Amino acid sequence: MKFPQPIALKALAELTGTRVIGDGSRQVSGINEIHKVEAGDITFVDHPKYYDKALQSAATFVIINKEVDAPEGKALLFAEDPFSAYIRIVRHFRTFEPSTAAISPTAVIGTGTVIQPGAFIGHHVRIGNNCVIHANVSIYDHTEIGDEVIIHSNTVIGADAFYFKRRPEGYDKMYSCGRVIIHDRVEIGANCTIDKGVSGDTVIGAGTKMDNMVHVGHDTVIGRNCLFAAQVGIAGVVTIEDDVILWGQVGVQKDLTIGKGAVVLGKSGVPKSLEGGKTYFGSPTQEARDKMRELALIKQLPELLERLKNR
Amino acid sequence: MKFPQPIALKALAELTGTRVIGDGSRQVSGINEIHKVEAGDITFVDHPKYYDKALQSAATFVIINKEVDAPEGKALLFAEDPFSAYIRIVRHFRTFEPSTAAISPTAVIGTGTVIQPGAFIGHHVRIGNNCVIHANVSIYDHTEIGDEVIIHSNTVIGADAFYFKRRPEGYDKMYSCGRVIIHDRVEIGANCTIDKGVSGDTVIGAGTKMDNMVHVGHDTVIGRNCLFAAQVGIAGVVTIEDDVILWGQVGVQKDLTIGKGAVVLGKSGVPKSLEGGKTYFGSPTQEARDKMRELALIKQLPELLERLKNR
Amino acid sequence: MKFPQPIALKALAELTGTRVIGDGSRQVSGINEIHKVEAGDITFVDHPKYYDKALQSAATFVIINKEVDAPEGKALLFAEDPFSAYIRIVRHFRTFEPSTAAISPTAVIGTGTVIQPGAFIGHHVRIGNNCVIHANVSIYDHTEIGDEVIIHSNTVIGADAFYFKRRPEGYDKMYSCGRVIIHDRVEIGANCTIDKGVSGDTVIGAGTKMDNMVHVGHDTVIGRNCLFAAQVGIAGVVTIEDDVILWGQVGVQKDLTIGKGAVVLGKSGVPKSLEGGKTYFGSPTQEARDKMRELALIKQLPELLERLKNR
Repeated sequence: MKFPQPIALKALAELTGTRVIGDGSRQVSGINEIHKVEAGDITFVDHPKYYDKALQSAATFVIINKEVDAPEGKALLFAEDPFSAYIRIVRHFRTFEPSTAAISPTAVIGTGTVIQPGAFIGHHVRIGNNCVIHANVSIYDHTEIGDEVIIHSNTVIGADAFYFKRRPEGYDKMYSCGRVIIHDRVEIGANCTIDKGVSGDTVIGAGTKMDNMVHVGHDTVIGRNCLFAAQVGIAGVVTIEDDVILWGQVGVQKDLTIGKGAVVLGKSGVPKSLEGGKTYFGSPTQEARDKMRELALIKQLPELLERLKNR
Repeated sequence: MKFPQPIALKALAELTGTRVIGDGSRQVSGINEIHKVEAGDITFVDHPKYYDKALQSAATFVIINKEVDAPEGKALLFAEDPFSAYIRIVRHFRTFEPSTAAISPTAVIGTGTVIQPGAFIGHHVRIGNNCVIHANVSIYDHTEIGDEVIIHSNTVIGADAFYFKRRPEGYDKMYSCGRVIIHDRVEIGANCTIDKGVSGDTVIGAGTKMDNMVHVGHDTVIGRNCLFAAQVGIAGVVTIEDDVILWGQVGVQKDLTIGKGAVVLGKSGVPKSLEGGKTYFGSPTQEARDKMRELALIKQLPELLERLKNR
Repeated sequence: MKFPQPIALKALAELTGTRVIGDGSRQVSGINEIHKVEAGDITFVDHPKYYDKALQSAATFVIINKEVDAPEGKALLFAEDPFSAYIRIVRHFRTFEPSTAAISPTAVIGTGTVIQPGAFIGHHVRIGNNCVIHANVSIYDHTEIGDEVIIHSNTVIGADAFYFKRRPEGYDKMYSCGRVIIHDRVEIGANCTIDKGVSGDTVIGAGTKMDNMVHVGHDTVIGRNCLFAAQVGIAGVVTIEDDVILWGQVGVQKDLTIGKGAVVLGKSGVPKSLEGGKTYFGSPTQEARDKMRELALIKQLPELLERLKNR
């Protein structure tokens, strides 16, 4: 998330009760968690395992719980609890605003777009032209939707990322400040859920079509002209390239890539990245022809055992 | 779908910019895609592989992209793009009408039926007597529901079929003109989705009970007194006979039949038709006792390998 | 369910057209199905297999279809059809009351709690302080929700238990009179379903977090600080202890226990109770390391077959 306008690092230090290491007059342009950082951003790190990654990341500013010198060109905020300091900044710039109208007066809705009864359109949502938003759809604040998009009933766009920090006393919520971006000619079935990005955007590429009850996690980026059958579930921070087909009830784990044109057969579970242009099956997925051969071999097990006994 | 009244073939030619082969004065009574055609219907075919099937089907009229003579008793429309011509006719007779009221004034609702707050009832929906439609249910236009039916909250009845034609430039939507028909004493759980037929009807037989988050695809026909546990997904054009039990998270592929009284255990994936009266398990499904035996054999693999090494 | 005030057994006999065996003047304090009975309760039994269990249960009163003497300290109702008599009592004390307002005037909503547009709050619902109930959520009657709870859009809390009695002519519905109890700091994702208890409570423990499209069946009791990823399905009458993690699309069968701190990897199917403190995978689940070893062995099958042939 970029801030509405840049803010001095020392102002963020004051907001969060943290201490500047380096030049506090420098201007911070936005906040992102580590997967999404760009120059000018502030991010956080609270585990020694990731100190180097954060300090060497593209982020210009880092909230950290270790007393270190700022690397060349960067400045730091020292915090006992960087996660809480990060959340404090997110919530300052992206406060949850309750809605009193089903369609927020701050929403911008294009010409020829139909909003059916019971649909909820949150604050600052933008919807393009010639879309149909069916009955009882819920669209959270800041979602952006292109032209000729169809969203079927009771689908939820932009709910919070499922992202928690485990503390000894329980889970601490990571507040999301990202968005959902849906490009032109996307169709999303009934009762789907597309979560917003934690700090960046969850993206559905142009022309992609989803059947009912498809779940897409936070910060997942989906290419153009993909086809997802019913009850597919895709975790967070996944990249799905163009023309990928996922058949019914496929599950995709977080933080991986499915290459262009890959096809994953029904009920498969994808635990790691898949090369494009191939067909996969199984949980965990293998190439479909290998999996089929394996299933045929398993059927020969009784005979195999028999032959062993007879020797 | 039958038309409100028959229409001359030449009028459809004019509507779609296509050319009549045969007698253009003949009356067309309805339109259906190839799975559902009856005498008097018009259908379409655009792939050489299916020309014969379409020309020999029960359809009296065929939209086709090949210059052929009309078979005995039939007449044709020649079109460069039969799919688009078909869609043009569907959209002419079944235009999407936006709703301005949560309960359409054209809906017919029986005595003793309760509609809870936030439920959406589309145009021309008919609901029988003594039903309960719970809060935030969405029922699309033309759905028909019998007596003593219970539909739990946030379920969606009659969303569009998930059916697209792949073009070089992306997916082209098949517009649905079919319906959902729900017979007496059906109960449907919360957050389910039952899609309408492409041109015919998706049917839920009397006395069938579904738990939450069950998905039923377009044109699927389900018998009487079936029981589907939570998160079952059934693709399109499936036939499920009476008294079938599908346990939780079962997935059923398109275009197959599950015989009367079959039981499919939880998490199974059904890739082809199943005989009735038996119990199945696995993905792909086998008879449950065979699958159990196979799972037991796999557990013996380590010992098997050991014995091989020792020879 | 406890009755608003105790009622004489003979009054229940009159209500249900059944006959008292024993002292009809004794006071009945509540009604529960056999999993939940306590002293003072009435329950029912209609299958010879369970006569002894019911007669020896904690229930003080039993509706039974066999002429037996009342055990010491108990009294009975003799009924041709105990299930129907039980249902008759449930429906007398817990009638479905249609709602005319999206938020029932009998609901009690705490300070600082936000109810977004389109949410339905049924009769006698209680919601604590500083909660957010997002748009188009549906909360059935009698649900109880603690403080700082977040429920995302289009989730359904308190729909009926999926519980039917098979009769020759079809399924007979067990009417639910239980509740859903959600403790403090729970977060429930979008499009989830948490069913009410049949006669007791479905419970979500404090600090537990669920992603989208999670299903929890009737009378299931979930501990504190559990984490369930998207599309998890948990059947009825399950006990999940504290700190359990279920990854995406896991399915859990009914009537079992998952021990404290267990982790179940994505797409697994849990058919029986799992010990706490371990990690599981597969359908049916095994300990993850055993399952991984098994998957590696299966990959060696081609070589194994080759070696057998060459002997």
